[in-house]
Amino acid sequence: MVAAVLEAALEELAERGYGALSIEAVAERAGVAKTTVYRRWPTRAALVKAAFEVEGNRAAPLPDEGRLDRDLTRYFLDLARRMATERGRAIHRVILVESDDRELWELVSELREERRKAPRALVARAIARGDAPKKLDVGYLLDSLAAMMLYRIGILRDGRPSQAEIATLVARSLAGATADIPSPRAP
Amino acid sequence: MVAAVLEAALEELAERGYGALSIEAVAERAGVAKTTVYRRWPTRAALVKAAFEVEGNRAAPLPDEGRLDRDLTRYFLDLARRMATERGRAIHRVILVESDDRELWELVSELREERRKAPRALVARAIARGDAPKKLDVGYLLDSLAAMMLYRIGILRDGRPSQAEIATLVARSLAGATADIPSPRAP
Repeated sequence: MVAAVLEAALEELAERGYGALSIEAVAERAGVAKTTVYRRWPTRAALVKAAFEVEGNRAAPLPDEGRLDRDLTRYFLDLARRMATERGRAIHRVILVESDDRELWELVSELREERRKAPRALVARAIARGDAPKKLDVGYLLDSLAAMMLYRIGILRDGRPSQAEIATLVARSLAGATADIPSPRAP
Repeated sequence: MVAAVLEAALEELAERGYGALSIEAVAERAGVAKTTVYRRWPTRAALVKAAFEVEGNRAAPLPDEGRLDRDLTRYFLDLARRMATERGRAIHRVILVESDDRELWELVSELREERRKAPRALVARAIARGDAPKKLDVGYLLDSLAAMMLYRIGILRDGRPSQAEIATLVARSLAGATADIPSPRAP
């Protein structure tokens, strides 16, 4: 039952968006009574959060090749694969379009923090084994790579980047994140 | 008349999107006869393209401080300023939501190429005066900065990045774009 309801919630979300999503419609699509849905997920936010979590669980296990550049390449290759599906694109579109919806925005921000834990763990492991400098700007590294994936897949729409392209992006972003940057002076 | 029609076109676009935009509605909003609009811009694509060009012309003149990092910081600060306005966000939203509309997508791709000319000129000038290495990866540099602006403003929505933040992004992206990256090997 849980799987069918969460699947129905993702379908409704991709088709109708967050503002127009109703628990009734999700229950009907899943073929269950709406009280069954309400009992487990009392609000739309709880339901959509659970559905996003299931979607997130489709991520590949965290790579561990003992080299940060390779691990990041594999991680972002998997992320690109999930983002470039029809559903992945539909859901990102909903998030972008309805980003003024405070409830959705909070839910997405929370999930984003949650999902950041995996690549942060890759970086922490690399620092611990001496494969990356401690002064690495983790925020820049992960933001720039996430931003590039969204830009390539969602905006330029020139297809899912290849492994070789992602490896180059990772190498350049790592070089940028570890560069010795002076405190910016006002131009 | 031209200014009023193009302004009306941007308003209609921000409110209704591209698919639902009609020349009739634009003419009515601008207070002109629809034949007046059709005569100058025979198609919706031509009208919207002209309107986008006007919007693009609000860009500040190309900076020239004699240093690539400062010029890029000023350029992207101005871009962030234009993107973070209510209309800028509405138009980006339309572009993202309707990115499956082939006509709109072609129009936007063409404009993007057009707009790339300005920052490319900054880089070319810097290379010519010896302020940047010839082997600099211009595509990475400009894509990563444009992607970060969109990510910060459109997705994280944590407000318009400050000049100091943009200066740091520029410094890191420049370091990444000029780093000596080996050809990627498959992990």
